[in-house]
Amino acid sequence: MTRPFVFEKPLGMRDTLPLLYDLKASIREKIQHVTETWGYRFMNTPTLEYYETVGDASAILDQQLFKLLDQRGNTLVLRPDMTAPIARVAASSLKKEPFPLRLAYDSNVYRAQEDEGGKPAEFEQIGVELIGDRTTSADAEVIALMAAVLKEAGLENFQIAIGHVGFIQELFLSIVGNEDRAAVLRRYLYEKNYVGYRQHVREMPLSTIDQKRLMDLLTLRGDGSKLSDAIELLPTEAGERVLDELRTLLQTLEAYGVADQVKFDFTLVSHMSYYTGVVFEGYANELGVPLSNGGRYDELLSRFDRPAQATGFGIRLDHLAEALGLTGDEKLPDAIIFSPERRAEAIQQASERRAQGEKVVMQELSGITNLDEYSERFDDVVYMIGKNGKGTL
Amino acid sequence: MTRPFVFEKPLGMRDTLPLLYDLKASIREKIQHVTETWGYRFMNTPTLEYYETVGDASAILDQQLFKLLDQRGNTLVLRPDMTAPIARVAASSLKKEPFPLRLAYDSNVYRAQEDEGGKPAEFEQIGVELIGDRTTSADAEVIALMAAVLKEAGLENFQIAIGHVGFIQELFLSIVGNEDRAAVLRRYLYEKNYVGYRQHVREMPLSTIDQKRLMDLLTLRGDGSKLSDAIELLPTEAGERVLDELRTLLQTLEAYGVADQVKFDFTLVSHMSYYTGVVFEGYANELGVPLSNGGRYDELLSRFDRPAQATGFGIRLDHLAEALGLTGDEKLPDAIIFSPERRAEAIQQASERRAQGEKVVMQELSGITNLDEYSERFDDVVYMIGKNGKGTL
Repeated sequence: MTRPFVFEKPLGMRDTLPLLYDLKASIREKIQHVTETWGYRFMNTPTLEYYETVGDASAILDQQLFKLLDQRGNTLVLRPDMTAPIARVAASSLKKEPFPLRLAYDSNVYRAQEDEGGKPAEFEQIGVELIGDRTTSADAEVIALMAAVLKEAGLENFQIAIGHVGFIQELFLSIVGNEDRAAVLRRYLYEKNYVGYRQHVREMPLSTIDQKRLMDLLTLRGDGSKLSDAIELLPTEAGERVLDELRTLLQTLEAYGVADQVKFDFTLVSHMSYYTGVVFEGYANELGVPLSNGGRYDELLSRFDRPAQATGFGIRLDHLAEALGLTGDEKLPDAIIFSPERRAEAIQQASERRAQGEKVVMQELSGITNLDEYSERFDDVVYMIGKNGKGTL
Repeated sequence: MTRPFVFEKPLGMRDTLPLLYDLKASIREKIQHVTETWGYRFMNTPTLEYYETVGDASAILDQQLFKLLDQRGNTLVLRPDMTAPIARVAASSLKKEPFPLRLAYDSNVYRAQEDEGGKPAEFEQIGVELIGDRTTSADAEVIALMAAVLKEAGLENFQIAIGHVGFIQELFLSIVGNEDRAAVLRRYLYEKNYVGYRQHVREMPLSTIDQKRLMDLLTLRGDGSKLSDAIELLPTEAGERVLDELRTLLQTLEAYGVADQVKFDFTLVSHMSYYTGVVFEGYANELGVPLSNGGRYDELLSRFDRPAQATGFGIRLDHLAEALGLTGDEKLPDAIIFSPERRAEAIQQASERRAQGEKVVMQELSGITNLDEYSERFDDVVYMIGKNGKGTL
């Protein structure tokens, strides 16, 4: 334990300087507008929640939680996601509102990091939750809304990968027989460690046919034609049901006009352990990491005593801003630099121009240390100096 | 220590439901717009800071800090204010930018609470920092901007009380002789415990004249005429300097057209121990607590190795929203309720209307549990049900 330097920030904590702040604000505004036109209502929840309620329900790895104790000895967490807190609200303050509920949020979430220079430990997430609707129309709606939002934000090239946690689970259980063994396989997929997955499958005491089924799962990535390949791997009633669902989903996404952005990826396993059905991730060509993800979570609400099927997505604003990129052109404001004799005149002019929406800094001359350096920060500078004369220098 | 109920939130933590969220969003947008036209640039800092740097500099009482340990054994705090973090940034990432710096923020801050049903432990603060400007024009600017912002937000009746920490300190030291005794007097004023203040003054071993001076301080509340009364209490060079400063301040506020909202209150002592000069608080007629406060802090920046005089203010969005009040009229969206056969048609109509900025919910009929109850949540409902017929039911 070393004493931090005076400028130091905790691991994974970042400042947002004005240029990036403005880019994020402009993206945020567009996303919020689109989301509201789809009838989602924004809300917020506290930064701190009880570990034993929301913290536990959130399904983020325990070592990634920021924990603290309150005065009564209860453990609190900085919320690691927004889905569990919104489920809490849907089941309590909003319990008189009939399902389906369409809610949205724009909030910071927290994940403790172990490495210097690694991932951010705090990031802003904008997302929606559609709670109490089991239909495939609901799955399609949140995927189409995510696409609409990314497009409105200005992202030109993006892809949405769609998988199905229920399909993988059925396939694994039908072959390996129990949840523990299925979990090992899921973990390889979650880590996108396909070499390790193959190795592990080869070492399992399975029939050649079953080994081939597990291997072939890795090839189920591509357009709608992969759906018929999938049914060959899982020719059961449950498999048929999932495939019917995905066919309807694809048709609906075609009607939304977003089918071109969509591909299937049956190896997709999200980090959130509460997903139960359709899951998806958004990728921008420019980025190596997903910028958004979501899926169906039909069990979570029952933890808060209001059982309901639900789906939703979250977009990471930092990743989206990175994909869009800083324009680098900060629009500089104008300045009026004045001496005390002409303060009232300066106030008058600034007020008039600000009322028109112009950005105008007023600065008393004697408050400036280095005039040359200071005046460079402005697009145009008007000087109102000295008692005589009223002209602009 | 009892296990929290599944819906429970930690002490002082609150949800923001859609109606209040929308009110706050609308206030926030107006405040940000005005602040930007005055040339302030919004930025943000992390929720967590080191206790030994920003936490210690923030001057919030230690028992009000939320503390936690990181993996390395350093103590972190949830930021209790934004002034200290912004000072850190001004002195590090922005150290190449010449003074004066005009920065703004809109961030949640955290203060641990001890009582159930008491004050919020997390609240949103919108404010500005004007760093590196020692002029009275700077003091006037932040007060005038605070007034402009409150007015733009829709607040019709508000008052700004202005005091001067330097004046009180000079007066106290000239009478009681040392800082410890002065601190006791300041504490009574901070707690607005005037009865206790009088009692304490009466018990001090002072001359009748000095006792009267300390008592008379309590009468220095009112319009600009109180300035000449003040100089009688502190007829020194330092007193004269403060009074000159306040006269210029008042004149400048007259030029800004906000003198009617302003009164002097020489008993004003803010909770922030880092204030050094002009301090002020904003009050709405509707509220018993200040909704905003600010002042000059000329010593804080030196803690971050970039000495600079500075001033700023922060507005509590929760108090401002309370003063403005909920209108109660939530604008309901429209809905299109459809069956699967007409999904594509529903998508088509919804897309067209959303593109016009209308709020339109799309809902598949089979996802609704109680149609009567559900449809009440909308202004207008279009039904697209069944294969035949295209009319609105």
